[in-house]
Amino acid sequence: MSGWIAVAGLGPGDERLVTDEVRAALAAATDVVGYIPYVARVAPREGLTLHPSDNRVELDRANHALDLAAGGKRVVVVSSGDPGVFAMASALFEALETRPDPAAFDIRILPGITAMLAAAARLGAPLGHDFCAINLSDNLKPWELVEHRLRLAAQAGFAMAFYNPRSKGRPHQFARALEILREEAGPDTLVSFARAVSTPDESLATVTLAEALPEMADMRTVVIVGSRDTRRVGRWVYTPRSVA
Amino acid sequence: MSGWIAVAGLGPGDERLVTDEVRAALAAATDVVGYIPYVARVAPREGLTLHPSDNRVELDRANHALDLAAGGKRVVVVSSGDPGVFAMASALFEALETRPDPAAFDIRILPGITAMLAAAARLGAPLGHDFCAINLSDNLKPWELVEHRLRLAAQAGFAMAFYNPRSKGRPHQFARALEILREEAGPDTLVSFARAVSTPDESLATVTLAEALPEMADMRTVVIVGSRDTRRVGRWVYTPRSVA
Repeated sequence: MSGWIAVAGLGPGDERLVTDEVRAALAAATDVVGYIPYVARVAPREGLTLHPSDNRVELDRANHALDLAAGGKRVVVVSSGDPGVFAMASALFEALETRPDPAAFDIRILPGITAMLAAAARLGAPLGHDFCAINLSDNLKPWELVEHRLRLAAQAGFAMAFYNPRSKGRPHQFARALEILREEAGPDTLVSFARAVSTPDESLATVTLAEALPEMADMRTVVIVGSRDTRRVGRWVYTPRSVA
Repeated sequence: MSGWIAVAGLGPGDERLVTDEVRAALAAATDVVGYIPYVARVAPREGLTLHPSDNRVELDRANHALDLAAGGKRVVVVSSGDPGVFAMASALFEALETRPDPAAFDIRILPGITAMLAAAARLGAPLGHDFCAINLSDNLKPWELVEHRLRLAAQAGFAMAFYNPRSKGRPHQFARALEILREEAGPDTLVSFARAVSTPDESLATVTLAEALPEMADMRTVVIVGSRDTRRVGRWVYTPRSVA
């Protein structure tokens, strides 16, 4: 097979956060596959075919990329952030698993700046100690599992980053998540809402869990919940490196 | 104060994984502060003073950077990977907290490709579902807390990434960590050892917890432990997006 696939992370939005490795893959590509707003970040050029697709068709998109590569194309599958964090890399391997010849495909995963780390950088260093990353959507797992993980993560004293905290289709679950966290981590725990980080729409807010309202998050928000040690210094929020 | 501080992530080693944002900060800097091997990655030039320092002096280094900025210097504090993940950003805020005028400092945190995401990309997508990041060193927290977190993380079904898994000064703890994980997550769970990713010394290995030996890790290794759903496809390791 002469074609290849690179699953590339475009970072959170700012072009200065795209790596040269990703730029080089895009420059060598014949085809770009991805969710509409991510494909829109790739500059059109002669010899490059853009294949934008809708949300929630990750497996179709992955199979499309595999088919194009099998036909000799050089395909970049674009994700925002990092492709390995709640993004297209896993979907590609799920599709690959259904093929008779997975070893025949030339695949590279190209890391990017994931949303929680871009958000953490803007806020200070809230993920400066042990932390976890949880996708709050129950599209692909039972909501009970989300609740279980939230409780155990709080009991472990992790800081937490939440992807997909809230959408129009499931407006009530994030309210429930905040309730659980108030119970397990305490009302004074700091929680930060980082929306559209590194884009012109960026907004940041930090409150306590007692003050947090579900409406503070939407699908473009990464929510970062501190550990009991997370605190403010000046306009910053950070988690110290040590635990007594 | 006319000086500033940028705490910048240089990524895991490959220059193609350094962001333009970080390069621009280095180009504008008068001073670079950091651990010796990271400062060595910055090209010397006229007008740029390099201040390499030894390991385990993070607070001294942070205070040095604050003093330089207070004196009008434009300072880049370099970390490998991402500065907000077990690196210099938290140390800088710890130092800032001891100053009478934290708000007077012009500080930016510039994200980078952190080791676990570079490692995950090389391996496939082992962190493609909910996961946690744990610093296995007990230099700054009690070992009992590490054990507690390992058990809860396994019970939550997180994939896990371990930083600083093993050093000459504490050779036995990683063996104990593997023991706990075999108990809690089961002997068939996949564990990957990703050493010096994106450098000429890179090596990758994936085994089961039953097969894992403490000697497979050193201080340059990121260890990634899968969830019960993590599996192989071809030469890849990945965690599917969904949990039944």
